[in-house]
Amino acid sequence: MLTLHYHPATVAAAIAIVMEELSLDYLPVFVDFAQGAQQSPAHLALNPKGRVPVLITDAGTLTETGAILDWLAAMFGPHLIPDDVFDAARMRETMYYLASTMHVNHAHRMRGARWADLPASHADMTAKVPQTMTASCAYLESHLDLAPFAVTGALTLADAYLYVVVRWASGDGVDMTAFPKLSAHQVMMADRFAVRAVVNKGLMA
Amino acid sequence: MLTLHYHPATVAAAIAIVMEELSLDYLPVFVDFAQGAQQSPAHLALNPKGRVPVLITDAGTLTETGAILDWLAAMFGPHLIPDDVFDAARMRETMYYLASTMHVNHAHRMRGARWADLPASHADMTAKVPQTMTASCAYLESHLDLAPFAVTGALTLADAYLYVVVRWASGDGVDMTAFPKLSAHQVMMADRFAVRAVVNKGLMA
Repeated sequence: MLTLHYHPATVAAAIAIVMEELSLDYLPVFVDFAQGAQQSPAHLALNPKGRVPVLITDAGTLTETGAILDWLAAMFGPHLIPDDVFDAARMRETMYYLASTMHVNHAHRMRGARWADLPASHADMTAKVPQTMTASCAYLESHLDLAPFAVTGALTLADAYLYVVVRWASGDGVDMTAFPKLSAHQVMMADRFAVRAVVNKGLMA
Repeated sequence: MLTLHYHPATVAAAIAIVMEELSLDYLPVFVDFAQGAQQSPAHLALNPKGRVPVLITDAGTLTETGAILDWLAAMFGPHLIPDDVFDAARMRETMYYLASTMHVNHAHRMRGARWADLPASHADMTAKVPQTMTASCAYLESHLDLAPFAVTGALTLADAYLYVVVRWASGDGVDMTAFPKLSAHQVMMADRFAVRAVVNKGLMA
């Protein structure tokens, strides 16, 4: 059994999308951020980082989106990692960029308290988010294949991750009309059965 | 041929350590941050993100430390990834945490201009780094095996990554005496032949 602790406004949706792509049975558990549930003793016992996603598996508990996606592919969907070793590296390069740069840029809009204490600093961070998220979109638009998938001509783990993070860009002040390939990727992914299933289950806001 | 573009104060050292562990031939190319060389047209042509590490391989150019490490293991050192699928996921969980949380915490000390514009914001960020890096060390101390390696009883990719990032903690204001298992890991790694070779070649400051 797989249990996914999630909030619909977070990157946990990427995990749900890949589980739907693989037709896996899983139990979604809503973590109510509005009530601070991610910092509750019960959640911290699962994940001392106080975040989602958390995936509970028969082998143990996993955190970190990229690591969970790689595990899902290894267990249930090796076709979601390119056979070619260099293409697999390009897939992971994309996933690490999303995790360590683009998601971090996005987090400075609402989560500045992670890195600074003063309200004025948080406002300064929030104001810069359209610029950093636009730069991230520009990098991805020029670097990725997007023909039509992120890496190679087939769906990989990176597509689910990319879809969820780029989906935040418009709300972060990015003019997506400047990025036609990323925009087309958004449209293509939104129409996949797996993504529609995740939306219908309320797992992605 | 493998060419590593690096600066000795960066996480590029983790790539060099793994290449030394695998006895690979590689050409190190120093990127002079003091001269802004990471933003030079020549470097941006290699990596539009303006960062290091960049690894040039016969198959193409790769960025992102975790992706490069995974590629090195796939090509030259599968023993650096645990055979057990769940242990491999725990290894990648550690690597994604280092990339997306702990390295990001560290970067707020000197690189606040990535996320905010005002000098007062940068000072506020810098002041919080001892707290965030201490929290990262506390998480790793309690979560990882460190018996003696990060995950399982054998060296994996995560050990090189962990060693380099935790090595910054003391300079970031962390009292490492509070973290005896991480401290022992630092001592153990520092004495490995591969790490000494990287130091002797000037690839880690």
